[in-house]
Amino acid sequence: MNAYQKLEATHKRLSALRNAEGILFWDHETMMPSGAAEARAEVEAELSVMQHEIQTDPATADAIAEAEQQREQLDPWQQANLREIKRLYRHANAVPADLVEKMVHARHEATMVWREARPANDFKRLAPKLKALFDLKREEAGIKAELFGITPYEALLDQYDPGRREVQIDAIFDDLAGFLPNFLQQVLEKQAQGPAILQPQGPFALDKQEALSRAVMEVLDFPFDRGRLDVAAHPFSGGADGDNRITTRYEESDFTASLMAVVHEVGHALYEDGRPKDWLSQPVGNSRDMTLHESQSLLLEMQAGRSEAFIRHLAPIIRDTLGGSGPAWEADNLVRLQHKVAPGLIRVYADEVTYPLHVILRYKLEKAIVADDITIDDLPGAWNEMMQRYLGITPPSDTDGVMQDVHWPEGLFGYFPTYSLGAMAAAQIFAAANRAVPEIMPGLAEGNLKPLYGWLDTHIRSQGCLYLPDELIERATGEPLGTAAYKAAVTARYLNN
Amino acid sequence: MNAYQKLEATHKRLSALRNAEGILFWDHETMMPSGAAEARAEVEAELSVMQHEIQTDPATADAIAEAEQQREQLDPWQQANLREIKRLYRHANAVPADLVEKMVHARHEATMVWREARPANDFKRLAPKLKALFDLKREEAGIKAELFGITPYEALLDQYDPGRREVQIDAIFDDLAGFLPNFLQQVLEKQAQGPAILQPQGPFALDKQEALSRAVMEVLDFPFDRGRLDVAAHPFSGGADGDNRITTRYEESDFTASLMAVVHEVGHALYEDGRPKDWLSQPVGNSRDMTLHESQSLLLEMQAGRSEAFIRHLAPIIRDTLGGSGPAWEADNLVRLQHKVAPGLIRVYADEVTYPLHVILRYKLEKAIVADDITIDDLPGAWNEMMQRYLGITPPSDTDGVMQDVHWPEGLFGYFPTYSLGAMAAAQIFAAANRAVPEIMPGLAEGNLKPLYGWLDTHIRSQGCLYLPDELIERATGEPLGTAAYKAAVTARYLNN
Repeated sequence: MNAYQKLEATHKRLSALRNAEGILFWDHETMMPSGAAEARAEVEAELSVMQHEIQTDPATADAIAEAEQQREQLDPWQQANLREIKRLYRHANAVPADLVEKMVHARHEATMVWREARPANDFKRLAPKLKALFDLKREEAGIKAELFGITPYEALLDQYDPGRREVQIDAIFDDLAGFLPNFLQQVLEKQAQGPAILQPQGPFALDKQEALSRAVMEVLDFPFDRGRLDVAAHPFSGGADGDNRITTRYEESDFTASLMAVVHEVGHALYEDGRPKDWLSQPVGNSRDMTLHESQSLLLEMQAGRSEAFIRHLAPIIRDTLGGSGPAWEADNLVRLQHKVAPGLIRVYADEVTYPLHVILRYKLEKAIVADDITIDDLPGAWNEMMQRYLGITPPSDTDGVMQDVHWPEGLFGYFPTYSLGAMAAAQIFAAANRAVPEIMPGLAEGNLKPLYGWLDTHIRSQGCLYLPDELIERATGEPLGTAAYKAAVTARYLNN
Repeated sequence: MNAYQKLEATHKRLSALRNAEGILFWDHETMMPSGAAEARAEVEAELSVMQHEIQTDPATADAIAEAEQQREQLDPWQQANLREIKRLYRHANAVPADLVEKMVHARHEATMVWREARPANDFKRLAPKLKALFDLKREEAGIKAELFGITPYEALLDQYDPGRREVQIDAIFDDLAGFLPNFLQQVLEKQAQGPAILQPQGPFALDKQEALSRAVMEVLDFPFDRGRLDVAAHPFSGGADGDNRITTRYEESDFTASLMAVVHEVGHALYEDGRPKDWLSQPVGNSRDMTLHESQSLLLEMQAGRSEAFIRHLAPIIRDTLGGSGPAWEADNLVRLQHKVAPGLIRVYADEVTYPLHVILRYKLEKAIVADDITIDDLPGAWNEMMQRYLGITPPSDTDGVMQDVHWPEGLFGYFPTYSLGAMAAAQIFAAANRAVPEIMPGLAEGNLKPLYGWLDTHIRSQGCLYLPDELIERATGEPLGTAAYKAAVTARYLNN
C-alpha cells in the first residue's frame, strides 16, 4: 500500500464507525427502549474515542505529506479526496486535547443548564455557562485562525462550510438585511388585502398523517428500498450509506407542519442518496457540508415543494388522504396556507421571508462575541433590539428570545449562517436548473420530479466533495453565491402573484 | 494502567464494537431497507476486521502473562475475568490467519450452495462444499486439540460450551438414546388412548397474535423498558447490553408456534438482562455460553411455560386476545395441545421428547466425521438409518433429512449438543429451584414469575462467567449435569399425568 492507499484504508475504517454510529443514533431516537440509554451512552462514547484516536494518529500526517509528493499520480477524485483528508486532519488536530476535553465538559454543562433555564426564563443562570463555553470557542477560533490563515469566525465556520469567507457572508446578509424588512411589510400588506387564509380543522389522526407523508414521499420518488420514514421527537435525516432514514413528528391539530417538514427531510435524504457510489466510504464522497445540504432540503421544501404548481398537484392527495372537504381544503386556500408570511419569535417556525432575519441576528451576535464587542450579559438586550428592528416584534421573555435555540449551549458557533446561505443557494440552484431544463415546472405540476432530479444528480448530488462549496455552486449555476435568485423568487411568489 | 487494567480496556472496546454489531444485526433483520444490504455488509466486515485485529494483538499475550503474575492482587471476579480473557485470546489466536480466511470462504460457499441444493434435494451438489469445509474444521480441531490438550471434538465444542468433555456427553446421550425411543412409544400409546387433541381453527390476525405475544411477555415480566419485540423472518434474541430484543414471526393459520417461540426467546433475553451489571463490558459478565443459554430459554419454554399450571393461567388470556371459543379453546385442550408429542422429520419443530433424538443423531455423525469414520457421501444414508432407529421414520428426501439445517454449511460444528445439554440443564435447574422455593409452582398458576426469577437471578443470571458451565450448574443444582431431572420431568408430564 502506498501512502495514499493507506489514507483511504484509514477513512474506510472511520466511515464504518460513522455508519455504525448513524444507525445507532437513528435507533436511539426511534426504537431504543428508554432503559437502555445508559449502556448505549457507553458504547457511543467508546466508538467516539476510537474515531478520535484514528483521526489524531500521528502517522497520518506523514502519510498525507508523502501522498502529496505523489499527487500527480492521483486522478482528480483522488486528489480531491486527499485535499479533504488533509482538511479533516487539520481540523481534528489543530486544537490541543485538553481544550477539546474542556469543551466537551463546557458543552455538557451549558446544555444541561439550558434545559432548565429556558423554561424558567432565567438567562442569568445560563450566562456563566455560556460565557465559559464561548471563551473556549474563542480560544479554538484563535488557534485555528492562526494555523489556517483565516479570521477567527471563519475558523469556526470552516467545519460547516469549508472555504467560506466573512466578507461574502457580510455582503449577502447586509443585502438581505436591507431588503427584507421593507419587503416583509409589502408582503404583509398584500396578504392582508387578499382572501382570508383558512386553517383546515383537525384533529387529524396520526395514522392518516403518516399515510399522507408516505404518499407525498412516493410523489417525491423517495427510494423506500434505500431508506425509511419513522417518528422521532426531534426530526432529523440520518441513517447510513445507501440507507437514508428520515423522521418526523405529527401534531393532531395541524397536519401542515409535518407535511413540509417531511419534504424538507426528503431533500436531505436524496442528497445523501445521490452521493457518488464509488466514493461512499471516502471524504470526497461525502455531501458537501451544511450550506449545500440545506440548499438541497430547502430546494425541495421551499422552491419545488411550495411552488404553486406542486401544491396544486398535492391538494387532491391531501384531501383524499385526510378526508377533508370544504373551502379550507380547496387548492387555492392550500396554496395560500403554504405561502403564509408572518413575523414570529421562533426561528424554526419561520417562513422563508422572515427566516433569514432570524439568522442574520444570530450571525451578528456571534461575530460581536468573537470580536469581544459585546459581553454575554449584553446578549438578551441586543437580541431583543434586533428582533424589533428586523421583524418589528420584541420577545416577551428570553425563553422565546435569546434562549430559544440549543445551538449555542451545544457549542454550535458559526453554524447558523449555513441555514440562510443554504436558502440563497437553493434559490440560485433551482433557478439554474429551470433555465437548463424547461420540463421542470411542468413536471412539478403533475408530480413528476424526474426532470429536476436529473439536473440535480448531475450538477450537485453526484459531485460529493470534488469541489469546495463555492466552486460547486458556481460550476452548477454559473455565478458565485448571491441573493439575486432568492430575491427574485420571493418577489415573484409573494408580490407578483 | 497495569496489565490487568489494560486487558479490561481492550475488552471494553471489543464490547462496544460487539454492542454496535448487535444493534446493526437486529436492525438488519427487522428494519433495514433491502437496498441497503450491500453497503451494510461493508460496514459489518470492517467492524469484524477491527475486532479481529484487537483480538489478535500480540501485546495482549504479554499483558495476560503479566496480569497472571499479579493474580493474587485480583478479586475473584477479576480472576475469573482474566481466565475468560485468556480463553478467548487462545481461541482467537490458535488458528493461523490463512486457515481462518479459508474457512470464511468455505463457509460462504457451502451456505450459498446449500440454499439452492436443499430445495432441489441435491445433496451431491452440496457434498464437495461440505467436505471442503469439514476438512478445514478438522484441521482447526486438530490444532486446538494439540494446543489445549483436549480431544479434537472437544476443541470445536469448547467455543460453545467451555470445558465440556466428550465422555460426559457420551454418557448423557447414550442414556437418552437408550431411554427415549421406548419412552416415546409409551407416550404415543397413552396419547392415542386419551381425548382427541383439537387444533383451534384460524386464520388468526397477525395484530391479534402480536397482542397475545405482548400479553404473555407482560405475564413473564419482560422488561419492555430494556427490550423490544419485533417481527423477523428468522426469529432470534439479540440487541445490546441492557437492551435485549426478541423477534418472532406469525403464521396466520397457527398461533401456537409463535406463542411458545416467544416464551423461549424471553428466556434468552431474561438471561442477558440478568447479567452482572458491573461487568457488562467484560468477558466475565457474559452469559455462560450456549448450553446455559439454552437452559434458560428451555426452562422458561418447556419447564415453566408448558407446565399445566402456567398453560391454565394463559388459557383465558389466549381466548380473550384471539377471540376464540369452543372446545378447542378450553384449558384442558390447550394443555394437551402444548403437550402433544409426535415424531417428525424436522428438528426445529420437534417436541421436548423427540428433540434430543434429533440432536444425538447429529452429534454421532459429527463425531464420526471428525474421527474420519465416515465420509461425506455416507452422510445421507447414515442420517436416514438413524432417523428410522430413533424415531421410526425415514425422510422421503434429503431436503427434510440431512440438508434440513444450515448449521453444517455455516461451519457450526460441535454446536448441536448444546441444545440438548441445555434441555437437561433446564430440567435440572428447574427441579433445584422448585426444591428450594416452594412458591414457584403456585406462582406459575397465577402468572407470578417472581419466586422463580428470584432464584434464577441469584443462582444463574447474576453469575455471568464467574464459573465454567459445569461448575455453575453444579453449584446451582448440587449435582453434575445429568439426565435424571429431565427423565423425571417428562415421565411426570407425559406418563403419570
